[in-house]
Amino acid sequence: MTPGINPERLMAMLEQQAAIGATEGFGLARPALSELDVQARRWFADRVRESGLELSMDGAGNQSVTLFSEKPDAKTLLIGSHLDTVPNGGRYDGVLGVLSGFEVLLALRDAQIQLPFHLEVINFTDEEGTLRGVLGSSAAIGHLSAEDLAAIRGGMAELEAGLGRIGSSADALLHARRDFSRYVGYLEAHIEQGTRLETAHVDIGVVTSIVGVRSYWLTFGGEAAHAGTRPMPDRKDALWGASHLIQQAREHVLLNFQPGVVNFGRIALEPGAFNIVPAQVQMALEFRHGDPVILEAMEDALLTLARQSAEMFGLTLEIRSAGLIAPAPMDLAMVELIEVAAKRADLSHMRLMSFAGHDAQMLARVTPSVMFFVPCLDGVSHNPAEYCAPEDCAHAAQVLLEAVLLLAEKSGDEP
Amino acid sequence: MTPGINPERLMAMLEQQAAIGATEGFGLARPALSELDVQARRWFADRVRESGLELSMDGAGNQSVTLFSEKPDAKTLLIGSHLDTVPNGGRYDGVLGVLSGFEVLLALRDAQIQLPFHLEVINFTDEEGTLRGVLGSSAAIGHLSAEDLAAIRGGMAELEAGLGRIGSSADALLHARRDFSRYVGYLEAHIEQGTRLETAHVDIGVVTSIVGVRSYWLTFGGEAAHAGTRPMPDRKDALWGASHLIQQAREHVLLNFQPGVVNFGRIALEPGAFNIVPAQVQMALEFRHGDPVILEAMEDALLTLARQSAEMFGLTLEIRSAGLIAPAPMDLAMVELIEVAAKRADLSHMRLMSFAGHDAQMLARVTPSVMFFVPCLDGVSHNPAEYCAPEDCAHAAQVLLEAVLLLAEKSGDEP
Repeated sequence: MTPGINPERLMAMLEQQAAIGATEGFGLARPALSELDVQARRWFADRVRESGLELSMDGAGNQSVTLFSEKPDAKTLLIGSHLDTVPNGGRYDGVLGVLSGFEVLLALRDAQIQLPFHLEVINFTDEEGTLRGVLGSSAAIGHLSAEDLAAIRGGMAELEAGLGRIGSSADALLHARRDFSRYVGYLEAHIEQGTRLETAHVDIGVVTSIVGVRSYWLTFGGEAAHAGTRPMPDRKDALWGASHLIQQAREHVLLNFQPGVVNFGRIALEPGAFNIVPAQVQMALEFRHGDPVILEAMEDALLTLARQSAEMFGLTLEIRSAGLIAPAPMDLAMVELIEVAAKRADLSHMRLMSFAGHDAQMLARVTPSVMFFVPCLDGVSHNPAEYCAPEDCAHAAQVLLEAVLLLAEKSGDEP
Repeated sequence: MTPGINPERLMAMLEQQAAIGATEGFGLARPALSELDVQARRWFADRVRESGLELSMDGAGNQSVTLFSEKPDAKTLLIGSHLDTVPNGGRYDGVLGVLSGFEVLLALRDAQIQLPFHLEVINFTDEEGTLRGVLGSSAAIGHLSAEDLAAIRGGMAELEAGLGRIGSSADALLHARRDFSRYVGYLEAHIEQGTRLETAHVDIGVVTSIVGVRSYWLTFGGEAAHAGTRPMPDRKDALWGASHLIQQAREHVLLNFQPGVVNFGRIALEPGAFNIVPAQVQMALEFRHGDPVILEAMEDALLTLARQSAEMFGLTLEIRSAGLIAPAPMDLAMVELIEVAAKRADLSHMRLMSFAGHDAQMLARVTPSVMFFVPCLDGVSHNPAEYCAPEDCAHAAQVLLEAVLLLAEKSGDEP
C-alpha cells in the first residue's frame, strides 16, 4: 500500500495543541517546563498512546515516539523539533516540525511500510531558551556541562523545579547524551520566520546552513565639549564615529555579504545633554552568516570599518566580544535529498540559510542533518499573528514522507 | 591726569575672590544665591566701600557701584557681568567682566576724570542658571514674568530662600525693571570659552552676535524585527535614518553654515536588544548661529535633511520643538567702538560670534550693547582648569577703559 499523509489528521492535531496555553489573538504561551508545557507534553503522550504506540522520555525531557524496523541492527532516523513556545508566540514555530513528523510516522505505520531504519519523532526540551536555548538537543548530543547549567538563564532552582515537573532532574539532564553512531540522520521541518519563500512564491526552502552569530560591544571615545563654543572642526564627537560606522556597515554588508545581515540593536551615549558634544558612544554590533569563512570575512570587514570610523573622527575604539555561535552547515547529501523529495511531492524549492537558531544546529554536529522551511504569512513569527496555511503544513509532512522513503530506497532496502 | 588701569590691583582682586568657594584644582563653586555667592557679594561690597564708593542693589539682587557724572541730565553707561559660577567652574567666567569694569571705574576715579555719563559697574544675579539663566539681567530689562518664576528650575521655594539670603524677594525681583532710555549702552568683557582667538593669535575678539539656539526632539519610527530572519533590504531600521541624518547634518553645517554649529547630544533606542532591529530612535538636535536669517535657513536645511533621511529608509519622523533662544546681534556702532578701543590699546582684534549665552544678550534688547572676549587657555571653561593669563585680564580692563573714553569723546564732552 502506498503511504500518504492525512492532512485532516495533521490539521486536527495542530488545532488541538493550540488550545494549550492559548493567549488572546490566536497566540500561544508555553514556556519550557512550565505547567502549560507539561500539559502540552501530556497531550502529545496521549496522542501517541491513542495511536497504539509507546512514548519514551530521556533525561533531558526529550519526548520520543518510535516506529521500529524489523531489520537486524537497524539504525535510527530522527525527525523532530519542539512543542515549547516563547512567552507570546504562535501556533506553528516548532510544533509543525514535531506534528508533521508524527503524521509521517502514523502514515507509514498505517500503510504497514517496513523501513530499513527505526523512525523516531522527537519533541526537544526548551528550544526557545526559557532556561537555555536548544537545551534538550544540546544534552542529547552531549554538548552540555555542569558549568553550562550553573550559568543557566533562569537559575538552577528554576531548572530543577521545571525538570521535577516532568519527573527528571539536572543530573539526568547531564547524562542524556546519546550514541549518534546509531543514527542515520536528522530531519526538521519548520516555518520560515522570514519572507524569502513568500516573496519568491516557492513552496519549500531547503536550509543549507544555520547562520553563525557574532556579537560585540563597540565603544567610541571622544571628548565632551560645549556644543556652542567648541568649533565643529575641533570636536571629537563619539557619535560622529558611531553613526558613520552604522552607515558604512549597512552599505558594505548589502553590497558584499548578502544574505548575511548586520544589526546595531543598542546604543548608549555619555554624558547625554542637548548642549554637550557626546564623549562616548557604546553600541551593540551583531552580524550573521551561514558560511564560516564568510562570517570571518564579515568580522574582518566590520571591525576594520569600525576602526576606520574611529580614526576618521579622532576617536578611540574599544572592541569587546559579547558572544559567538558558530555557523552550522547542513549535510549536503541531506540537502539534495530534500530537494528530490520536494520534486517528488511536486513542490517548488530553493536553497536558503536559516537566520535563526534551531535544534538542527546542534544535531548537525553529530549526524547528517538538514532542515527545510515552509512559508509563514508575512514572515511573522514569535507573535500571536504567526500563521501557516493548511496546504503549507501539509507540504511539510509530504516532504518529510518523501525524504524518509528516499532514504529507505537509498539504503538499498525497498520499503 | 591720563587715566590708566592698575593691573596689580585687578590681579589682586581676581586672586582674592578666588578664595570664596574654592574647589580642588583651582576651581570655583558659587551657585547663585547660595551661601558662597552671598560671601562673594559681601566681598565685592567691601571692596567698593573700601574704595570710598557706595554699593547699591536692585530687587533682582543685581549689585552696582556708580561713578557719578556732574553733567546735568547725565545718562548712564553700564559695564558688567556676574560673580556667580557653575557648580565646578573656574575663576574668570563672569568675574573678569565685573572686576575689570570695577578696575576701570577706580582708574577713572583716581585720575579724577569727569565723564559726560554716569558709569555703573554691575554684578548680575544668576547668569549661570542655578535657578534661571541670565535671571538678573532679564529682570532688569523687564523680561521676566510671574509665569517664568512659576516654571523656575529650582522651584519657587528655592528662589524665595535664595533671594531672602540677600534681603530681596520674588516680588521685588518682578519689579526690578529699569528705564533703559536713561542708559547710553552696555559693555561686557568675558573670557572666550573657545579657541578661536588662541588659534588665530589675536588679543581681542569683538562679538558681533550672541548666537541663537534652537533645539528639537526628533523621533524616527521604523519596525522592530528579528535581526537574523528579516532580510536587510526589507528592514525599517530607525537607526539607519538617525545615523544618516547625523552624518548629513555634520557635513552640511561644516560646508554651508560655519561658524554655526550642530549637535546631537542625546539618543535613545527602542526596543534595544542585540538581535532586534531598532523600531524607534529619539534624538536631541541643537543648532546655533548668530544671524537670525541664517539660523532660520539652518533650521530649514536640518529639518529637511531629517525628513529626507526618514524617507530614504521608509521611516516615520516626528519633530518636536524643545526650546529656542533668539540670536542677539550686538550694536554695530558699539562693535566698531571696541575695535577702535583695541587699536588704541595696541591690541590685535577680530570679529567673532559668542556661541554661549551671556547677560549681554538680554541688554542688547534695550540698549546699544557689545561684548568682547579675551583668550582663555585651550578654550577650557566651566572647569577648574579655566585659565586667563594676567596680560589678557589686563587687556580686558584696558579695552574697557579706552571704550569708555571714546564714548565720552564721542558725546562731545572731552573728559
